[in-house]
Amino acid sequence: MKAIEWIGDGSGFLRLLDQTRLPGEVAYRDCREVPDVVAAIRELAVRGAPAIGVAAAYGVVVGAGQGADWQDLGRKAAVALRQSRPTAVNLMWACDRMLRLLDSPDATRDRLLREADLIRAENAEMCRAISLHGAPLMPMSGGVLTHCNTGPLATADFGTALGVIAASWESGARFTVFVDETRPLLQGARLTVWELAQAGIDHSLICDNMAGLLMQQGKVQAVVVGADRIARNGDTANKIGTYSVAVLARYHGIPFYVAAPSTTFDMGIGAGTDIPIEERDPREITHGFGRSTAPAGVRAYNPAFDVTPAGLITAIVTERGVIDPVKEDKIRAVLGGD
Amino acid sequence: MKAIEWIGDGSGFLRLLDQTRLPGEVAYRDCREVPDVVAAIRELAVRGAPAIGVAAAYGVVVGAGQGADWQDLGRKAAVALRQSRPTAVNLMWACDRMLRLLDSPDATRDRLLREADLIRAENAEMCRAISLHGAPLMPMSGGVLTHCNTGPLATADFGTALGVIAASWESGARFTVFVDETRPLLQGARLTVWELAQAGIDHSLICDNMAGLLMQQGKVQAVVVGADRIARNGDTANKIGTYSVAVLARYHGIPFYVAAPSTTFDMGIGAGTDIPIEERDPREITHGFGRSTAPAGVRAYNPAFDVTPAGLITAIVTERGVIDPVKEDKIRAVLGGD
Repeated sequence: MKAIEWIGDGSGFLRLLDQTRLPGEVAYRDCREVPDVVAAIRELAVRGAPAIGVAAAYGVVVGAGQGADWQDLGRKAAVALRQSRPTAVNLMWACDRMLRLLDSPDATRDRLLREADLIRAENAEMCRAISLHGAPLMPMSGGVLTHCNTGPLATADFGTALGVIAASWESGARFTVFVDETRPLLQGARLTVWELAQAGIDHSLICDNMAGLLMQQGKVQAVVVGADRIARNGDTANKIGTYSVAVLARYHGIPFYVAAPSTTFDMGIGAGTDIPIEERDPREITHGFGRSTAPAGVRAYNPAFDVTPAGLITAIVTERGVIDPVKEDKIRAVLGGD
Repeated sequence: MKAIEWIGDGSGFLRLLDQTRLPGEVAYRDCREVPDVVAAIRELAVRGAPAIGVAAAYGVVVGAGQGADWQDLGRKAAVALRQSRPTAVNLMWACDRMLRLLDSPDATRDRLLREADLIRAENAEMCRAISLHGAPLMPMSGGVLTHCNTGPLATADFGTALGVIAASWESGARFTVFVDETRPLLQGARLTVWELAQAGIDHSLICDNMAGLLMQQGKVQAVVVGADRIARNGDTANKIGTYSVAVLARYHGIPFYVAAPSTTFDMGIGAGTDIPIEERDPREITHGFGRSTAPAGVRAYNPAFDVTPAGLITAIVTERGVIDPVKEDKIRAVLGGD
């Protein structure tokens, strides 16, 4: 089962596993037009910062199509896809890379598809490298807490934070993964639990508000999460609730790790306060489970992300190495010439 | 609409508003036998520490019935009701008070019902006094965050933490109440939002994992919650998630208040570590919304309460005054001869 798959040759289409219907149902969305891809990203059929980037790259190929004006159409697709969600920067990065190819003199339709394939392959390699760099940071036993979903579904392949967890288990560690269910959309309960079960990794599902109790009880030895955008000072935007977990980890003296590819860094943004935070439909909170769970007309607040200040992050694990301490000079040193 | 009502005379029955069906449906459970009352408490048709105490007192009247052996039956009812939930101490307190009456030489069936009525009336008076003591602690504007449900539904009348909020609004304060939805059973989304709407108090529903972000944004000036049991050193058991909120409040320098009647104190328990914490069915997490929200067979951990150490509590508001600082000698001084 693949979260993202290109079907056919250059005139083919993009097939996305519909993650909104997991774990109850394994269904696919075939995207043959750019609005299909935009809708799939907006509606979270494909989600997770790295996976969104890969899907958008293929979305540009979908948009370019087969006509004589394929370069123009590809550019329009890249612009539309770039705006489909505001917080994850991998999306902008992938669209910009496709735009650069479209603008280059040796652009061909065939190369466009190969570029998307390359983004996907590089992404998989980055995730694998992140996993290997991060694995030694995990405990050999006890508990590791994670929030939201950062496995193969979120990254097209391998995973970031969940990749670190899996690589640690591959190397012999035997901790329990405490999975925050991750309200409102339950990516932890629906997706992370499903991926951990497939990987044979011991886990226990909890409500987000139980993380503090587990830490108080000494059951959590490390926290590892993904990221949607990281400012150049290390401030990290990630799924709503991440900041609360980071504060709880700090209070209890538990290391808090972020695992993300270098493409998640936005060096054009100085600090987390400048990262745009998507607010989503309050009905995700009040109607998220097939029925209303609050009185009609209630006002609800639904930010999709929050920002964890660099000072609360023990280290950021990238494919180029571990950033510790999380400070701008160290970030630049590890990421290199970017 | 009353959460708890005795219908008829001494040979009447106990009518409970079924809180598990709110806000979608206003339905009642008529309890004519002790097992009906025990089931209503276990299944959370009636919940909230003070309300459970009042319901259990009436449950003893239900159990005593009309036969010649009414005193024996009443005692058996009190013992069964006392064990229906393990954490809230008001339940034990109310059952023990009914037992003392049953054992006294001037016990009559009529006095038994009057004793339950008296527990209810005293409870209402305590809540009103708590509300008035606590109101001055609330800000005049900005935001107040609360967790779970502590209004009239949870207390039979007035409310504890929600009573403080309501009294503060009555006296002219105009803050927004941020309501944690309170997973897994959504008492905040289903009940607190409903009560605040009825009272005309401005509010906004959030997922539990958004509390940290709101505090980071400076939107929360105070936190106020209820309690299920308080040890004599001030450690406070309350709905799961309370401890996380208390840690977040401390980190952000926001006052964290507990509002509870003196009957919530268990002076026989030295510290929070000795308070028994109820674990409930994991299906409350995985099947709580009318459909499964996690893969079949997933392991989940479902503690119903956590313990907030006294050191994280700015003050405890009781009907006898405000306990500040939260230390054993101050607790004894405010509670008096208990």
